[in-house]
Amino acid sequence: MDRVYMSKIHEHIDEEIECAGWVHRIRSLGKITFLLIRDRSGIAQTVWDDPPELTLESVVRISGRVVKNEKAPGGAEVQGKTLRILSKAAPDLPVPINQEPDKLNIDALLDNRMLTLRNPKIRSIFYLQSDILAYFAEYMRSRDFTEIKSSKLIGSGSEGGTGLFEVEYFDRKVYLAQSPQLYKQAMVANGMERVFEIGAAYRAEKHETPRHLNEYISLDIEMGFIETDHDLMDLEVGILSHIFSRIRENNQAILDEWKTDVPSPAEMAAAPRISHDEAKKIISDRLGKRVFDLNPEGERELSTWAMEEAGVEAVFVHSFPRKKRPFYTYPLDRKTMSFDLIFRGLEITSGGRRINEYDMLVENMKRFGLEPEQMSDYLQVFRYGCPPHGGFAIGLERLTQKILGLANIKEASLFPRDRKRVSP
Amino acid sequence: MDRVYMSKIHEHIDEEIECAGWVHRIRSLGKITFLLIRDRSGIAQTVWDDPPELTLESVVRISGRVVKNEKAPGGAEVQGKTLRILSKAAPDLPVPINQEPDKLNIDALLDNRMLTLRNPKIRSIFYLQSDILAYFAEYMRSRDFTEIKSSKLIGSGSEGGTGLFEVEYFDRKVYLAQSPQLYKQAMVANGMERVFEIGAAYRAEKHETPRHLNEYISLDIEMGFIETDHDLMDLEVGILSHIFSRIRENNQAILDEWKTDVPSPAEMAAAPRISHDEAKKIISDRLGKRVFDLNPEGERELSTWAMEEAGVEAVFVHSFPRKKRPFYTYPLDRKTMSFDLIFRGLEITSGGRRINEYDMLVENMKRFGLEPEQMSDYLQVFRYGCPPHGGFAIGLERLTQKILGLANIKEASLFPRDRKRVSP
Repeated sequence: MDRVYMSKIHEHIDEEIECAGWVHRIRSLGKITFLLIRDRSGIAQTVWDDPPELTLESVVRISGRVVKNEKAPGGAEVQGKTLRILSKAAPDLPVPINQEPDKLNIDALLDNRMLTLRNPKIRSIFYLQSDILAYFAEYMRSRDFTEIKSSKLIGSGSEGGTGLFEVEYFDRKVYLAQSPQLYKQAMVANGMERVFEIGAAYRAEKHETPRHLNEYISLDIEMGFIETDHDLMDLEVGILSHIFSRIRENNQAILDEWKTDVPSPAEMAAAPRISHDEAKKIISDRLGKRVFDLNPEGERELSTWAMEEAGVEAVFVHSFPRKKRPFYTYPLDRKTMSFDLIFRGLEITSGGRRINEYDMLVENMKRFGLEPEQMSDYLQVFRYGCPPHGGFAIGLERLTQKILGLANIKEASLFPRDRKRVSP
Repeated sequence: MDRVYMSKIHEHIDEEIECAGWVHRIRSLGKITFLLIRDRSGIAQTVWDDPPELTLESVVRISGRVVKNEKAPGGAEVQGKTLRILSKAAPDLPVPINQEPDKLNIDALLDNRMLTLRNPKIRSIFYLQSDILAYFAEYMRSRDFTEIKSSKLIGSGSEGGTGLFEVEYFDRKVYLAQSPQLYKQAMVANGMERVFEIGAAYRAEKHETPRHLNEYISLDIEMGFIETDHDLMDLEVGILSHIFSRIRENNQAILDEWKTDVPSPAEMAAAPRISHDEAKKIISDRLGKRVFDLNPEGERELSTWAMEEAGVEAVFVHSFPRKKRPFYTYPLDRKTMSFDLIFRGLEITSGGRRINEYDMLVENMKRFGLEPEQMSDYLQVFRYGCPPHGGFAIGLERLTQKILGLANIKEASLFPRDRKRVSP
């Protein structure tokens, strides 16, 4: 007999069905016992006169008759007939699975990751993340972007060699890529014109903050034949509007569970675009002290300002000074054609137009203290015809964190890596 | 004015248009010059009385009038009016872009990867690969699988510690994951039940063959509540049938260019399923010598046998002996519930049912010389209730290689990594 999922049990009133799942809760009321059984679709109540001895989290297969019960989750319950234990759980669960996860601190949450992911609310973060990946890719493909997979093992750093993890690669050393920067630019230059990549990025930085991971998933985009960085901001508004619309369509229950919402396309289109200088001025005015850079406090303040001014907690900051951006950023006087997107108080994107002219690039490398000879593969891309282009990257975990309002970015990574944590 | 793509020029006969792209070929015939211009959609002919001096691969923006010309590609050409050079290419191209790539050997192809990817036929490999990624994900989602992203930095190897690349991770050593095995099993056990992952896998093996890469993209699947490994083979037939059908729908031009085809769903469903013992016997009989394992020669022979027997170059080999499979493989007498899929002479998948019982797993670890104490994170997954489950992985580059008939797997990787090659 086919298994019925818990979320569909109410469609089988008065039928004999089979279902399967994990023992989520056991409640004995005198002569009868209620077993709440959890599967990937949800939780259902089953009722037993004389159940076998069971432990929480054991996996069982059940047969029984579905009856209406307005008090049961979903309005129906299963009157148990047979129960087979597929896998018996040990009785010494180190963390509770069937309670609100808010009670666990971040270390308990991550030290017991193999178990805390069983909690439905925690698991919902990753159902949403799976869908974000789908929504992102479907939008990029609808705009005729090609998905690429570039190597994460590189001979040298793209941004000057700091913050790289070293890998023993046979008889030499290589590094884990901080971004697919070089490769996505190369794919635009070689004629693909529009590419995206969903891949891991590595930063060997000793941060210990609620917004940094040493390994994260980067949603990377690069696009040829643009004029200015505003073409890129337009594209990002399109991407995020699509992702948010699809979330409202398909994931409302998760938004409700986390008591959050996402901006509408109209709200995203209204996101202000201000220069780095303007941003500093707004922050300085509001905080009543002079700021010289966008620090976390400033980013939060800017988000609040955008909400007040434009009704959306999203703001593009562009025209960063040259020295604050990587060597490949296209200059515009003493500034650059570059931008960050701050969403709900956190930078979730960095991007810009890139230098596509060979001579300008060599000159800028030298200005940044880099040796062009050591980046000959990269330079070859520009030596033989490269259109004007640019791109950006969205951090998947930061986006997830900000959509759901998670306190710590590590909650948005299945198996996060930080300075001390390399397991599970 | 909006840019018209080369593949759409014939829709604009007698109109003034603008287009942009790379100078693919320059041909002077007396007073007139033909410039073939390439963009991501294709190649079009433009005609000039007096063109500016140009180099191959320079990027240009052109305006002109479209006229019918049956002899031109697409049946139309552009009578050039203005030409603006967006990026001038150096005149010393080290490899030709506009010739059949067959003339380049694998080293020339890869040493100049930044340029050889400009060749439309070489680039077509990766348009197809991008679509394979989409087709795979859309099928998995249609079957209610959740996409996961697991860490590629692991504290110890899942299969015993050989073949791992070592990473300097702050003040300790970690390894690059050979597969997401542990994590995909954990996600099934924690209640997701059905997961897939598209991610990099690393093998520190000194192979130098046309079918090995040290870094590749693994299409990983894991599924709960299966009965035997035949459930998994059924699933793989479904996945590949979907991918192949979608390729026939959308990518026929690429199949034609590579003079190849893909099996139909009916053909895939007919793929024989034979035991490891039967496979050895078939190979021994056909080669006229006794074989004790499935080596590359045997895999090719088995593929030919399947074509003759069942009309498809695909064959599942199951019931491998216990010692030939990893410790987590579910035993069945002296064999295992495991399988390989051989497609066009090459193993593109390995999979099987996994042990989901804690005691059996601990016992098998010891049998394989592993120390259960060192794999306590992994064991925790099974200690607290894990349903019967299994999974498999498809190598993206192997699948691409075999679909297109590429001689070397490195041709199916944008920036392949082998023992000697870590750039570009």
